[in-house]
Amino acid sequence: MYRSLLLAAVCATAALAQAPRREPAVNDTLQSPEVSSDHRVTFRVFAPRASEVTLTGDWLGSTPTPKLSKDERGVWSVTLGPFEPSIYIYSFNVDGVAIPDPVNPRIKLRARTSASMVEVKDDTPAFWEARDVPHGAVEINWEKSKAIGGETRAIWIYTPPDYAKTTRRYPVLYLLHGSNDTAAGWTMAGNANFVLDNLLADGKAQPMIVAMPFGHATPFGVPVPQGGVTNDALFEEYLLKDAIPTVESRYRVSPGHENRAIAGLSMGGGQSLRIGLGHLDLFSAVASFSGAVPADFETRFAALLQDAKGTNQKIKTLFIGCGQQDSIFGRSKNLSELLTKYQVRHTFHPIDGVHNYTVWRKYLAEYAPLLFR
Amino acid sequence: MYRSLLLAAVCATAALAQAPRREPAVNDTLQSPEVSSDHRVTFRVFAPRASEVTLTGDWLGSTPTPKLSKDERGVWSVTLGPFEPSIYIYSFNVDGVAIPDPVNPRIKLRARTSASMVEVKDDTPAFWEARDVPHGAVEINWEKSKAIGGETRAIWIYTPPDYAKTTRRYPVLYLLHGSNDTAAGWTMAGNANFVLDNLLADGKAQPMIVAMPFGHATPFGVPVPQGGVTNDALFEEYLLKDAIPTVESRYRVSPGHENRAIAGLSMGGGQSLRIGLGHLDLFSAVASFSGAVPADFETRFAALLQDAKGTNQKIKTLFIGCGQQDSIFGRSKNLSELLTKYQVRHTFHPIDGVHNYTVWRKYLAEYAPLLFR
Repeated sequence: MYRSLLLAAVCATAALAQAPRREPAVNDTLQSPEVSSDHRVTFRVFAPRASEVTLTGDWLGSTPTPKLSKDERGVWSVTLGPFEPSIYIYSFNVDGVAIPDPVNPRIKLRARTSASMVEVKDDTPAFWEARDVPHGAVEINWEKSKAIGGETRAIWIYTPPDYAKTTRRYPVLYLLHGSNDTAAGWTMAGNANFVLDNLLADGKAQPMIVAMPFGHATPFGVPVPQGGVTNDALFEEYLLKDAIPTVESRYRVSPGHENRAIAGLSMGGGQSLRIGLGHLDLFSAVASFSGAVPADFETRFAALLQDAKGTNQKIKTLFIGCGQQDSIFGRSKNLSELLTKYQVRHTFHPIDGVHNYTVWRKYLAEYAPLLFR
Repeated sequence: MYRSLLLAAVCATAALAQAPRREPAVNDTLQSPEVSSDHRVTFRVFAPRASEVTLTGDWLGSTPTPKLSKDERGVWSVTLGPFEPSIYIYSFNVDGVAIPDPVNPRIKLRARTSASMVEVKDDTPAFWEARDVPHGAVEINWEKSKAIGGETRAIWIYTPPDYAKTTRRYPVLYLLHGSNDTAAGWTMAGNANFVLDNLLADGKAQPMIVAMPFGHATPFGVPVPQGGVTNDALFEEYLLKDAIPTVESRYRVSPGHENRAIAGLSMGGGQSLRIGLGHLDLFSAVASFSGAVPADFETRFAALLQDAKGTNQKIKTLFIGCGQQDSIFGRSKNLSELLTKYQVRHTFHPIDGVHNYTVWRKYLAEYAPLLFR
């Protein structure tokens, strides 16, 4: 036994000696991001030949972009924080090339570029973490779209934990993502499924289906040609002609506008306002989180604003939220003031925060309990 | 009208003049990868300050790694191919940093590092493409694991198109991924859902559920401590104690080993052999695609090999496949020879190909029709 072990060791050494010299595999063992118990995060990237590495993240107070410093192995690093518990999106910039963290498996998928995510946790699970409660599932449904040239598109759909165990019908929240995000965003960065699981376990929300379609109907990053259909117009057609019929044919859905809500973040907030308020026969609840409020809101919805009494009867919940440090905070604030001027009932709830999922998770957890009561 | 347009133009110009000079936004419009109609692919990356950029891909004949050349904008590019239609995985290496393609949204998620994917199509949709046929769904299920320290883990589960429309029970194929892959791999790179949809539409396979668990039970890339439980042993415990019970409690599953199959690629091929052949009371069909065949197969399965007649009665389908240009082809070939020597009935089907999803998609399409007949 000892003899064969010795032989094996000799052979292995011989094999190593013969093998071509390999650069030290720093990346094989590099840890990034590393979250310490005091909520500080160390970001590291192995880039031995780079002359400058910076970091961009979506946490509060992330500017100016910190520069990283390089050690003798060629690993650039910086420690930031402490951070409020959340999931943050970040990317490195190595000599002008923006990249996700090469060794972090947790990728923020995007419509064009990609980034990485880091999760900062407390000892007690937060409202957006997987707690030891029954979990709903998120189902990816593919369907050929009539509205968008026969393209096969995916909708991500959350069903509550009891969905498969009952024969009942459920109301549906259509939950829209922002620009340069994907149908996976609300699940993989927003943890919408765990937010709902936790609300349900705590008896704070009605069981509901959450349908998360892909909000880019025209190719992202490609300018719409002169006179062409805008993304918002084409997405509206897609949602009404493809996504909603798909959801309603595949799932046990309660009928009627009282069982349909629409909410979205950023670009999706603008889409929610446009589509939701434009179709109060279909939706009874509308929300905009940090929304790209349509610039023409007052003229577009003149009839709705003029008839505030009728509008207030049709809309059960109109919710507007935005982080106060968000660069587009003014758009939500102005919308609330406009609605107040016309006496349209709504909730405007600014909170501390920037344009990120930290804010949007909070709004989802605040908004979902208001629905379908 | 003309006046206000003119004013707007003047104001826009003034705003531009005042804005800080911005580097030309090459990345905003850069196209990569670009697939031409003759199946050649151009890969591009904007890295103006880099001194060397290379490309690695999993296509046949991908070595030696091609070097890219740089144009006057700082865009490095290379055109390769023509390629056989498939979805290939590739990454750039910019001055020693391996990165996914910064502008390609299609990311290959991995257990540690990430890469990009490029799809090369023919005019006629291939067996792994979304055709205009009924689509099944892929559901992400989260469950707290008893075997793996209370960790909440995801299983991706394909249900056939008719699942929600019937009350029948379905057999289950457990489909395992390879090393440094994730539970999303067989769906997002393997197109397992579309492969099954197409087989079903063509009447070539029985409707089945396909359960795709996460094959890394110990942290990927972290060596197992001396005397610690190996990944394969812990994954087996997880599959038997967590994953299968989760699937069988959440879905309408046909009972009995005749309705359970297990298959996997690479590391997952080794796991399939270990777990499947080790539990013929649970599984009646086992497959290894380009498998990491256990080195101790002959001693580990001595009883099974010695009793070939009994073994042949228990196993309905034992399938071994591997690409002939795969560096671990010998392991599958040797396994087939061993099984032949002991007269254990099996199918060994080598095909042209390397260690990639091009091969594994083909094997899934070949193997699934053999099941549950």
